[in-house]
Amino acid sequence: MDDKQCKVLFKVEGGEDVSIFASFGESLLDAAKKANVALDAPCAGNGTCGKCRVKLLEGSVTGEPTRHIPAEEFAQGYRLACASVAVSDVVVQIPAQAGAYRSRIKVSGKGSVREGKIFENLRKELRAMGLEKDSGLEFINIEIEKPEGGNGMADRERLLRKIALTGPEPETSVEDNINFSLHALRKLPQTLRSGGGSLTVLLRREPGTKTGIAIMDVFPANASPAPVIAGLAIDIGTTTVSVLLVDLLTGEILTTGSAGNGQIRYGADVISRIIESGRPGGLERLRSAVTEECVAPLIRDMSKAAGLLPESIYRVTVAANTTMTHLFMGVNPEYLRLEPYVPAFFESGPLRSADLNLGVHPDAEVLVAPAIGSYVGGDITAGVFASMLFKKETLSLFIDLGTNGELALGNSEFLMSCACSAGPAFEGGDISCGMRATDGAIEACIVDADTMEPALTIIGAADQKSAGLCGSGLIDLIGELFRCGIIDARGKFIREGKRVRRDQWGGASYVAAFAEDSANGREVALSEADIDNFIRAKGAIFSAIRTMLAVLDLGPEAIDDVYVAGGIGGGINMRQAIRIGMFPNLPAEKYHYIGNSSLHGAYAMLTARNAGAMIAKIGRGMTYLELSTHPGYMDEFVAACFLPHTNGDFFAGVENG
Amino acid sequence: MDDKQCKVLFKVEGGEDVSIFASFGESLLDAAKKANVALDAPCAGNGTCGKCRVKLLEGSVTGEPTRHIPAEEFAQGYRLACASVAVSDVVVQIPAQAGAYRSRIKVSGKGSVREGKIFENLRKELRAMGLEKDSGLEFINIEIEKPEGGNGMADRERLLRKIALTGPEPETSVEDNINFSLHALRKLPQTLRSGGGSLTVLLRREPGTKTGIAIMDVFPANASPAPVIAGLAIDIGTTTVSVLLVDLLTGEILTTGSAGNGQIRYGADVISRIIESGRPGGLERLRSAVTEECVAPLIRDMSKAAGLLPESIYRVTVAANTTMTHLFMGVNPEYLRLEPYVPAFFESGPLRSADLNLGVHPDAEVLVAPAIGSYVGGDITAGVFASMLFKKETLSLFIDLGTNGELALGNSEFLMSCACSAGPAFEGGDISCGMRATDGAIEACIVDADTMEPALTIIGAADQKSAGLCGSGLIDLIGELFRCGIIDARGKFIREGKRVRRDQWGGASYVAAFAEDSANGREVALSEADIDNFIRAKGAIFSAIRTMLAVLDLGPEAIDDVYVAGGIGGGINMRQAIRIGMFPNLPAEKYHYIGNSSLHGAYAMLTARNAGAMIAKIGRGMTYLELSTHPGYMDEFVAACFLPHTNGDFFAGVENG
Repeated sequence: MDDKQCKVLFKVEGGEDVSIFASFGESLLDAAKKANVALDAPCAGNGTCGKCRVKLLEGSVTGEPTRHIPAEEFAQGYRLACASVAVSDVVVQIPAQAGAYRSRIKVSGKGSVREGKIFENLRKELRAMGLEKDSGLEFINIEIEKPEGGNGMADRERLLRKIALTGPEPETSVEDNINFSLHALRKLPQTLRSGGGSLTVLLRREPGTKTGIAIMDVFPANASPAPVIAGLAIDIGTTTVSVLLVDLLTGEILTTGSAGNGQIRYGADVISRIIESGRPGGLERLRSAVTEECVAPLIRDMSKAAGLLPESIYRVTVAANTTMTHLFMGVNPEYLRLEPYVPAFFESGPLRSADLNLGVHPDAEVLVAPAIGSYVGGDITAGVFASMLFKKETLSLFIDLGTNGELALGNSEFLMSCACSAGPAFEGGDISCGMRATDGAIEACIVDADTMEPALTIIGAADQKSAGLCGSGLIDLIGELFRCGIIDARGKFIREGKRVRRDQWGGASYVAAFAEDSANGREVALSEADIDNFIRAKGAIFSAIRTMLAVLDLGPEAIDDVYVAGGIGGGINMRQAIRIGMFPNLPAEKYHYIGNSSLHGAYAMLTARNAGAMIAKIGRGMTYLELSTHPGYMDEFVAACFLPHTNGDFFAGVENG
Repeated sequence: MDDKQCKVLFKVEGGEDVSIFASFGESLLDAAKKANVALDAPCAGNGTCGKCRVKLLEGSVTGEPTRHIPAEEFAQGYRLACASVAVSDVVVQIPAQAGAYRSRIKVSGKGSVREGKIFENLRKELRAMGLEKDSGLEFINIEIEKPEGGNGMADRERLLRKIALTGPEPETSVEDNINFSLHALRKLPQTLRSGGGSLTVLLRREPGTKTGIAIMDVFPANASPAPVIAGLAIDIGTTTVSVLLVDLLTGEILTTGSAGNGQIRYGADVISRIIESGRPGGLERLRSAVTEECVAPLIRDMSKAAGLLPESIYRVTVAANTTMTHLFMGVNPEYLRLEPYVPAFFESGPLRSADLNLGVHPDAEVLVAPAIGSYVGGDITAGVFASMLFKKETLSLFIDLGTNGELALGNSEFLMSCACSAGPAFEGGDISCGMRATDGAIEACIVDADTMEPALTIIGAADQKSAGLCGSGLIDLIGELFRCGIIDARGKFIREGKRVRRDQWGGASYVAAFAEDSANGREVALSEADIDNFIRAKGAIFSAIRTMLAVLDLGPEAIDDVYVAGGIGGGINMRQAIRIGMFPNLPAEKYHYIGNSSLHGAYAMLTARNAGAMIAKIGRGMTYLELSTHPGYMDEFVAACFLPHTNGDFFAGVENG
C-alpha cells in the first residue's frame, strides 16, 4: 500500500459495501466516481449544489461547516463529498436517498391519467395524419412441410421457400431479399419441431429496400402466452430517462418507467459531462452510466412488469438532446463545446440494438431523432413533432423546460428554434431542495400573505410528506413569496418570521416544510441562492422568447398558442409562471402543458414509421438561432433577471391576477 | 464442502493452476471439461484413444494399467483422465503437450512454398474467370469542408454530402442509401480534425442493393502506416482451424495461422460434439471452444504478426462442415444426427462479425459457404469450387480427407457428392501416435524390407525429432509394413524383430521412433489397433468411390483426374495410397494434391464477391448420395477393409509398382 493513499470504505445504504484507495488530494466524490458508487453531484463537484452529502462514520477528512452543512450537522459527521479529502483510512456512509438525482428506477404501470389524456390526443393526431400503427413489423402464420430424408431441404430453406410462395411479397426472390436474423435462426430448429411445423413468423419490412423483408423471430403456432411485438420509446434527458414499453400491434402502452440519468454524478449540465467524456475512459464511463446503469435495467424491469422477455422488443426509438445522443451512441461530444460547436452527426441512420448493448432483440432497429445543432437536439425535433405546431397555420411557441430550455417558434410555413442556458433548475437541479416531479415533490403551493404559512400540494399518496420542490412547485413558491411581499424583485427576503430563517453566512431561506414534517427528516427550505438560480433560469427563457420575436419583428400578442413541455411537472401554474416573468403575459387559455413531448415524439416514431421521416424533415427545415452570439440577447437576459422584469410594463395587471 | 466431492487441482504445464470439486463418480476428464482445462479426448472419454494422459502428483484415483498406460508408466503416476475417478483430494499434472489436438496456435508467415504454388494456381483460375480482387471494399480520398458556426452542418452530414456529390455513385440519395457504420461514426470527429479535413474513407458496396454503400471506416489522409483493407478466410475443421489473413486490395496473403479446434476435448468426431451440445450449456461451450478459444485468439495473433489491428479486418469467409458451421453460429445441430438428418440451414445469408464475437470490425460481413446436407457441408462446396472440377468437361473425382471423408464426382454437367464415416484417422485422430501434419509429424517413410529399419521424413527443421505420425506418414508406414511383409492383409504383425513389440494384452506395435529418438521422450509406435482403425478409414473412402461409380454405372477408368484435398498432409504418396487400397489403381499422374481446398474456397469467396454466388450455385446443383442407406455400400465397405482389398484384381500389378 502506497503511504500516500487512504483506504475509503463506502457503506451504501441498501447496497453493497465498496472500498477503494483514494489518491493523495482526491476528494471523496472523485473516489466514489472511481469506485462506481452513485453519488449525485449536479454541480460537478464545485461545492455549490450541496447534493453530495455523505456521513463520515470513521476516520478523518478535511473541511469545515458551510451553508450546506451547518455546524450541528457537521458535528454529526455530515460532509459534502466534493469538499472532503480523506486524511486517514475512512468509512463513509452513502445515503440511500442521496438526492433527487439518484438513478432510482421507477416502473409505473400504464402512466397517469394526465399522461393518458395527452397520449390519447397524440394518437388521434397521428391517426388523422394516417400515421398510426405502422411499425413495419407483422406476424404471419405458416405451415412448413415436414423434412424429407436424403436430399431433404434444411429448416431455413423450407421456411424461406414457403414465405417466398405465400408471404407478403410473393415476388420476393428468396436468396436476395430475405434477411434471416441469427437470433431467429438459432430458435428455428426447436421451434419448428415443437410447433409440429406450424409457425408464427415475425417479419420486418426492411428499410431502404422495396421488397426486402427480414425474419426477426419464430414461434410455435398457438404459443402461449401469445407472442407480442413490443417496442420502446426512450427519452434520454440530461436529468431523467423516461421510457415507454409499447405493444406495436395495438399502440397500447404496456408499462412506463423512468430513472435518474446515471451520468448525473459527473455533473448536472451537459458541459460537465462533455468535459468528463474527454478524460481517459470518460466517454465509455458516460455511455455506460446511461445505458448499462439506467436504460438496460429499466428495460429489464419494465419487460418483467409487462410479463414479456426483453428479446420481444423489436424496435426502439430514442429522443435526446445532442450531447445525450452522442454519449448514448458512444460518439465523442467534445466538439459540441468547442468553437464552432459542431456535432459529430445530426442524423444517425438506423442503428442496431446489439451495438448499443440494450439487451433487447439484437437486430431491433434503433432510430434516433435527428438534431439540428449542438444545443437543439432530437428531443426538440421530436417534441416539435408531438406538439403538431408544424401543421398549424397560426403561430405557436414551443417551450421545452428540461435541463436547459429549448424553444421553437413557427407554423406550417417556417420554424425557428433556439436554446438558452437555463440550467437544470426546472427539473430541481442547482436548487438545494430541488427534485424531480416524482413522489414527495411539492408541485404546487399557496402562501398565506399574513401568516406566511404555506399550503402544499405534494405528489404521491394522500399521506405523502414533502421531500423537496420540483419545477412547478418552485414557480409556485417563488411566485407566492413575491406576491406576499416576502421577497423583493431581486429575490431577497424582506420580511421576518417563523418560516424565514437567516444563517450565519448572511443568507436567508424560506422553510416550506420543517424537518419534523418532511419525508426524510430534513427541512425543505428555499434559500436566496436557490431563488437567484431560479431567477436566472426563468430570465433565460423569457429573454429567449423576446429575442426570437424580435428577430421576426413580432410582439408577444402574435403568438396564438404556447405549448409547454418538459420535466417541470404537469402541475405548472401558468399564471404564476407569468407572475414571476418567465412566460409572456398572454391569456391563460393560450398555454397548453403537453408533458414530455420528446418522449411523445419518440412514441410517434416508434409506432409510425413515417413519423421518423417527418421528424427528419422538421429538423432539416428548422432555422437555428444562436443566442449566445446574437446582439441584444445579453441585455434582454440581464433585464429579465428580476421579478417579474425590469420593465414592469410587460407584466402590467398581472400582480392583481 | 460436500463430503461426496473431491477437490481436484490441475497443474497445467505452462499454464495456470485450476482447482475444482469433482462430483461423486466424475472422471478427471469430466472434471477438466467443467474446469475448462484443455485436455484432448478424441474418443470422447471411451478409453480407446489414449490421448487424455495426465500425471497424478498427489492423492488417489481409481483405475489400473491398460494398453495405453503400461505398468511402468502407471507406477510413475500416468493415468488416462477418462478412466480415473478421484477417491481423495488430488493434484493432477496436465502436460503442456497433452497431445496432437491441443488448441495450440501457430502463426506461420505467408505459408509454405507448396501452399504458395497452390495459391498461385487458384489466383490464376480466378483471374481467368474474371473473379479476382472484387471484395466490394474500396478506399476513396475526399476533402471535407470546414465546419461553419451557427447553422453549420455536423461532421457526418458534411461527409455524406461530399460522398453523394463525388463518390462512386453520384446519384445516391444521401439519406436512404448510405449506411454509416457506428464504428466509423465514433472515429469521425477526431479523424476529421487530425486530418485537417482530408479523409480516406473505406466504402463497401452493400450486398442486395443496387446503389447502396456503407461507410465502414475513416482515416486521416496520408495516415501512417497506410490503412489496409484486410480480410479473413477461415476453414473450421473438426480437428484443425486454419486461417488466412489477406490484403483484399492485392489478394496477397499477409499471414497464415492454424490451431487445433478447441472442441476436441468434447470428442474427435462430430457426433460426440452434437451430443455434448445437447447438454445444458453445451451449445455455448462448443461455440465458445471454437470461437473464443481458437478463432478469436488466432485473429489477434495473426493481426499482430501482420502489424495491423483486428478492426482492419472488414470481410470474413468461413468454410466448414455442417456441424462445425452450426456450432460456430451457435445454432442447435441436434437434428443433424436424428432421423431424417435435417440441418437447421444450408445457407445463412451474410452475418455480422459482432454477432459472432470475432473481435474484428463489428460490421464486417461474415459469409459462410453453403452446405448441401447434414454430412456434406460448406467445406465441400467451397472445396469443389477450389478444385475447379465443376468447370471441366472431363470427369473428376474430388476427395477431401479431413475428419471423415467427403467426396464429389462430376464435371460441368453434373455433380454428385457423398460422405463416408472414415473417422479422424487421416488427421491423426483415433491413432495412438497420430498427430496433425505439423512440426514433428512423420510425413513420409521408407522401411528396409530386410532390417525393418525405417527412414523417416519429419516436418520441421533439419534436426526436428519425430513426435507422431500424420495422415501421409500413416499411409506410408502401413504401405511399407505391408510391402515388407511385416503385417498381413488384415493388418496383423507377422514378423518379429527389434522394431516389433508385443504387449501383455497380446497386441503388437511397430516402433517408428524409440523414446530416446523422439521429440518428447515417448516412443512413436503404431499398434495393431491403430492399423485396424486406419484400415477402416481407408476402406470407407475406397468403398465410397466404388459406390458412386456404380450409381453412375462407370468404372474407375472413367475418372480423368483425382483431386485430393485435406489435412492429410502435402507429403501424401499416391502410390502408397493405392498400394494399401485407399484409392483406385489409376496412373499416378491423374492424382493431384490440392491442399486445404476448403480454405482455398473460402479465400476465393473472400477476395471475389461473385465466387460466393458460384459456390451457392454449386451447392444447389449438387446431388447428395446417402451412403448409409444405400444398398450395397456396406458390402463394399467390408470388402475394402483389407490390404489392399479382398478382391486383389482391383490392385493387380501394384505390389511391384
